[in-house]
Amino acid sequence: MAIQQSIDNALEKTIGQHGIGADTLSAALARAGGALDWLRARHADGGLPLLRLPEKQDDLAVIRDAARRLARDATDVVMLGTGGSSLGGQTLAQLAGYAVPGVGALSAPPRLHFIDNLDPLSFETLLAKLPLKTTRFVSISKSGGTAETLMQTIAALSALKQAGVEAREAMLGITEPAKSGKRNGLRDLLGHHQVPMHEHDPGVGGRFSALTNVGLLPAAILGLDIGAIRRGAGAALAPVLANRKVADVPAALGAALAVALAESKSKTMSVVMAYSDRLERFTRWYVQLWAESLGKNGKGTTPVAALGPVDQHSQVQLYLGGPRDKLFTVVSVAGAGLGPRIDMELAKLAGEPELGGKTIGDLASAEARATTETLANNGCPVRTIHIARLDEASLGELLMHFMLETIIAAHLLGVDAFDQPAVEEGKVLAKKYLASA
Amino acid sequence: MAIQQSIDNALEKTIGQHGIGADTLSAALARAGGALDWLRARHADGGLPLLRLPEKQDDLAVIRDAARRLARDATDVVMLGTGGSSLGGQTLAQLAGYAVPGVGALSAPPRLHFIDNLDPLSFETLLAKLPLKTTRFVSISKSGGTAETLMQTIAALSALKQAGVEAREAMLGITEPAKSGKRNGLRDLLGHHQVPMHEHDPGVGGRFSALTNVGLLPAAILGLDIGAIRRGAGAALAPVLANRKVADVPAALGAALAVALAESKSKTMSVVMAYSDRLERFTRWYVQLWAESLGKNGKGTTPVAALGPVDQHSQVQLYLGGPRDKLFTVVSVAGAGLGPRIDMELAKLAGEPELGGKTIGDLASAEARATTETLANNGCPVRTIHIARLDEASLGELLMHFMLETIIAAHLLGVDAFDQPAVEEGKVLAKKYLASA
Repeated sequence: MAIQQSIDNALEKTIGQHGIGADTLSAALARAGGALDWLRARHADGGLPLLRLPEKQDDLAVIRDAARRLARDATDVVMLGTGGSSLGGQTLAQLAGYAVPGVGALSAPPRLHFIDNLDPLSFETLLAKLPLKTTRFVSISKSGGTAETLMQTIAALSALKQAGVEAREAMLGITEPAKSGKRNGLRDLLGHHQVPMHEHDPGVGGRFSALTNVGLLPAAILGLDIGAIRRGAGAALAPVLANRKVADVPAALGAALAVALAESKSKTMSVVMAYSDRLERFTRWYVQLWAESLGKNGKGTTPVAALGPVDQHSQVQLYLGGPRDKLFTVVSVAGAGLGPRIDMELAKLAGEPELGGKTIGDLASAEARATTETLANNGCPVRTIHIARLDEASLGELLMHFMLETIIAAHLLGVDAFDQPAVEEGKVLAKKYLASA
Repeated sequence: MAIQQSIDNALEKTIGQHGIGADTLSAALARAGGALDWLRARHADGGLPLLRLPEKQDDLAVIRDAARRLARDATDVVMLGTGGSSLGGQTLAQLAGYAVPGVGALSAPPRLHFIDNLDPLSFETLLAKLPLKTTRFVSISKSGGTAETLMQTIAALSALKQAGVEAREAMLGITEPAKSGKRNGLRDLLGHHQVPMHEHDPGVGGRFSALTNVGLLPAAILGLDIGAIRRGAGAALAPVLANRKVADVPAALGAALAVALAESKSKTMSVVMAYSDRLERFTRWYVQLWAESLGKNGKGTTPVAALGPVDQHSQVQLYLGGPRDKLFTVVSVAGAGLGPRIDMELAKLAGEPELGGKTIGDLASAEARATTETLANNGCPVRTIHIARLDEASLGELLMHFMLETIIAAHLLGVDAFDQPAVEEGKVLAKKYLASA
């Protein structure tokens, strides 16, 4: 295991009344055992394709080959897709230097753009600015019917046509395989233009798709080892398949903690605070995963994304001084000794001699530890996840850990982790208002 | 007023039991009247310098001049500072195209970088990659003692020295004026290197500093009209100073609504969902402002940032299907007719003929309206803020609106909006752990 979880600072015996009681946790763990049985059965019968991804290898060459062809002679690759069609890819790409907070792209070419929002000004300006002869577009929609993605794909097709570029040379689509009787707008649109299509696994929903071609294609474009991502995911799944004691399965322990604290101690929010720029997109991915999988039938807790140390200067005052309504997860990455080392003389000049000789990573690591302990000292429940080395394997493990934890939490809450019934009403209304625009 | 607020969809009479009752709101408004009296008194006696900023003009030329000198022959400007020393600047800079979500910089040169987080890998890579002879650094810390900013400033000084660049030619500092007996590390450090210093208004705290040189300097670097930003802020303040009926002061109405819903209907979260890429940083700025100003003495509600339409595919399932524990603010920007227009034939091919002839802005606008109504139809309280045209004036108005609303909410909750007492403990612990690193 490349990631280490501890819930010591979330226990009643450690932090007092806002921690979880031993009996309550045991009861939740016992219920989580049923979810583990279910997961093992679905792994055995193939009923949940997500669980077979760690061992899947036959698609990796196809993904690598598509990435190579897309990246060849390309300056820019524009990923079109929203929600689950984008956040997994963004999370993986950030490991390679995509969208580093405050800095921008630190990755090797080509430049990646993940257009997951619909904004008239941004997309128009981007299309006008891109060198279209060396730009590739990847359009992703599981159902093929996502209005935002279809609009952007159509706008891209029109821009390519105007630039005299053949769509079939510049685009790729990822959507479900054709099914008789089921319309797929993206497949029809791109098929008409002879654009190559890859298949979105119909059994893996968008927010669980980071480890499929949806997330791995952009990762491969940036040169990441996608096999290692899958292997890392296997490390998070292994304790489930090994039929270990429930408390020794990290995803089950995390899920039991979150649900038991919500039900017994009214911790209605789940804050994930990651201490690494390269995990900032991960926190957004987590927000979708947790919110959309659990928020139904009046159930669910609200995920909150935070980044350390910066949010110590933004949200920590509320965490410590405000209501005790949150469970915290601090995700830290070993950083001691890393980054620029501080000159002794300059540290003295700044009146902070204790900074001299230390590195930026030393301070960031000390702050992650200090925040964890300060939260616990003030009676806030904290679960910690420590990553010794942030790379493809540990990130794959982290993503699978949270997908499993979410599925187990859904089991405990009695909701379906895989649907999103409430978003239809807004889509219908939007079409009505669009018609009158 | 360039921004229009409505709370119709947050009223009990409109949306039912989760809306605010007329009597409860009236009582909160009556209490808010006291906060308005306090604000008018502080405007009159100058006790809260924030309130004098809209009319302040004597510093604009200095800011513009500094911006001009920094930008001259510069490829890159690195803004060093964390929390309130950064988020206001980021929010304004995004109006000019800084860090457009998914796209990156669409602004004119020089490139701006806001380094508000402390990450060893990011900063090391950035320093190695920047053309240091044409890079400028602006280091901002009100107290001059922020460890993260000092470390990054020292690392930048060392990098400049190694590149043979004089710090006094390449840097600028913003910190409080020298006070006898009070140490200011940043002032001492930069003073030693003859780096020019601008004064951070000692009476304006970091999270309220967007309209001072802290926020206006980066805005001016990107060519924004900083006078218009200040004038826009004045438009939000005017109803306070005009001694209007409390319910006719938008900031007082918003504050009364938020606090009354928290106290009477357990709406413990305040979701701000903005429908514009150029307001994404605004939502982060709001999170700090609301969290750090109100989260004390067990009070405060938790701010949640959301971006539309993308978070319809991430968080809206939870908003509609999960617990009724949130107040929503949907911020929309008029977008009808804007952006790429969709080809009729391609829309038909995609099986979505209703998209044909419409623009991306048409759909985004329809979605903002549909999300608002769907939330309200499902009994979720929604306040709307509509911006007819997003520019310097309306953004300045929006920022001042939310600063006033936050101050009034603090008055209603009985907390001090301007301190952050809880963050000290973590700083002390971090220094202890750093010493042993």
